[in-house]
Amino acid sequence: MRPHILGIDLGGTKVLAAVLDPDGKIVARARAKTRGWRNDEEVFRTIALTGHRALESAGVDQDHLAAVGIGAPGPIDFDTGSIIETANLKFKNFPLGPRLAEEFGRPAIVENDVNAGVYGELRAGAARGAREVLGVFVGTGIGGGLILNGALYRGFSKGAGEVGHIIVAAGGPRCGCGNRGCLEAVASRTAITRDIRKAIKRGYRGPVTKSLNKETDQLSGKDLKLAYDSGDQLVKRVIHRAAKLIGVGMGSLLNVLGLEIVVLGGGVVEAFGDDFVDRIERAARAIAFEINSENVKITRAELGDDAGVIGSAMLAREALNRNAQRQG
Amino acid sequence: MRPHILGIDLGGTKVLAAVLDPDGKIVARARAKTRGWRNDEEVFRTIALTGHRALESAGVDQDHLAAVGIGAPGPIDFDTGSIIETANLKFKNFPLGPRLAEEFGRPAIVENDVNAGVYGELRAGAARGAREVLGVFVGTGIGGGLILNGALYRGFSKGAGEVGHIIVAAGGPRCGCGNRGCLEAVASRTAITRDIRKAIKRGYRGPVTKSLNKETDQLSGKDLKLAYDSGDQLVKRVIHRAAKLIGVGMGSLLNVLGLEIVVLGGGVVEAFGDDFVDRIERAARAIAFEINSENVKITRAELGDDAGVIGSAMLAREALNRNAQRQG
Repeated sequence: MRPHILGIDLGGTKVLAAVLDPDGKIVARARAKTRGWRNDEEVFRTIALTGHRALESAGVDQDHLAAVGIGAPGPIDFDTGSIIETANLKFKNFPLGPRLAEEFGRPAIVENDVNAGVYGELRAGAARGAREVLGVFVGTGIGGGLILNGALYRGFSKGAGEVGHIIVAAGGPRCGCGNRGCLEAVASRTAITRDIRKAIKRGYRGPVTKSLNKETDQLSGKDLKLAYDSGDQLVKRVIHRAAKLIGVGMGSLLNVLGLEIVVLGGGVVEAFGDDFVDRIERAARAIAFEINSENVKITRAELGDDAGVIGSAMLAREALNRNAQRQG
Repeated sequence: MRPHILGIDLGGTKVLAAVLDPDGKIVARARAKTRGWRNDEEVFRTIALTGHRALESAGVDQDHLAAVGIGAPGPIDFDTGSIIETANLKFKNFPLGPRLAEEFGRPAIVENDVNAGVYGELRAGAARGAREVLGVFVGTGIGGGLILNGALYRGFSKGAGEVGHIIVAAGGPRCGCGNRGCLEAVASRTAITRDIRKAIKRGYRGPVTKSLNKETDQLSGKDLKLAYDSGDQLVKRVIHRAAKLIGVGMGSLLNVLGLEIVVLGGGVVEAFGDDFVDRIERAARAIAFEINSENVKITRAELGDDAGVIGSAMLAREALNRNAQRQG
């Protein structure tokens, strides 16, 4: 049996683990909730156990495991494999890479979660074979990752890819990051919920009103889609505007980066599907110069929740191969 | 005598030529006006003659010339070395590279003019030794070029680098490109002049009024600086706003690209100097995430008008070396 790879995707609310066989096929999965855990050690135990469960379910023991890759939120110190900090988990300068390597007795790499997802789409999803790719994930926030010249592009700062924090509406709504008019502040699920809440406060009534009356912080993609499908005019207007503004951001980046593929994913894109992507695409192509529009493909992500585990596993395998070559 | 390179910078109003010695030093220059020429052949003759004058002045004959490089406006077909079209000159699918190669009996390369300028700053100016660079030139329009992983980045489309056409103010003023709220539409000299003209129409009077009463389309950098220095409140406000919005665009791109150096040049930057760059820098750093701000240098271009001739000459020399290696 040739060596398998364990890929892990750590999110603010859940952890997914998958075992990939030597052909890159997922042979087993495991998942667990991460929400509510008190400290970094408890979260780490959850991650480790989820990994072990996936390996067990695949029937892969340590002798047949080659490496571990994990995609994690928050800025990462790539030199040490540590998570510097995260918004939703208690990690603070936590040596996630070294701890996973110790736990599984194999080399482990840590990558930014969104980068790992984009890399998964590059190796096994919507961007297979491409060289210049932007991945954009629209959910609670808007995250992104770049593939340039066929490789993951982290930039000089190692913090590239933050497409949610380009300013598309200078002086516009305040973003969670403190600035005004970020793409995330006008087109994420958080922004969409805020705009709907505001209109309801001003007296709007429609199918969506019921959902917002629930004890909930944010409308889910499902809530929004239900209201949209039942003809809620406010939700339609807000969703169409969000798609248009995402397109404005994408068009801007097409002009700067002359991309080959833009891959769109995340909860909002999955809930609203092709019509949402079409609206983004039309707005982006209206803005991009002809040369930057005529050859780009704008498409939906294909791997869903698997993107992160596949991407981090692929990155772990490639790091292993590079090291083997160096030593060979 | 080792081989020299001829570098040419073709603009809408002038053509510059320079001869670089094997150490990359400019040993002679020539220039001519291009404005008002009727057709492509006449412009080409001007380019060729300017090149010959520079070679003559350097005392370099064809035997000691290795290659020719030219930076030219407009989208370029890199496969054929043709200019597809230009806004200010009559070139239309003009085979500029092959024609220069024929004229000088040496290999010739054609590059986008702004890319050539950024490449000059990379090899001999403010970005020496850097790997992730954005060059931004603020004049009549706003142009840009990217160096990623140490090399000129043209993107999949070959049309990357159009930083003047990222949208910073969705729904804002109409741009020459047809869109609304492009960086160029809110912060170029054209936008600055438009805003000042509008305020004067509404009744504003100040030192700048006189300059705009002249028979002129646009305020020059010098006009603007004079009014600014004599305390014109309108000009101050408009210039400060332009700097801030350029900073907004740069901060956005820092978040996407995690850059090492941002080099700022062009007529407006040269006219207003360090104070203008400081304002851009403050706005950019306010927007960029800490990880994307803490290591980036934001600085003025160093080469002025020489950037384009040096950059295109360097690109020609490197293309020659690559070909020699392939054949060797």
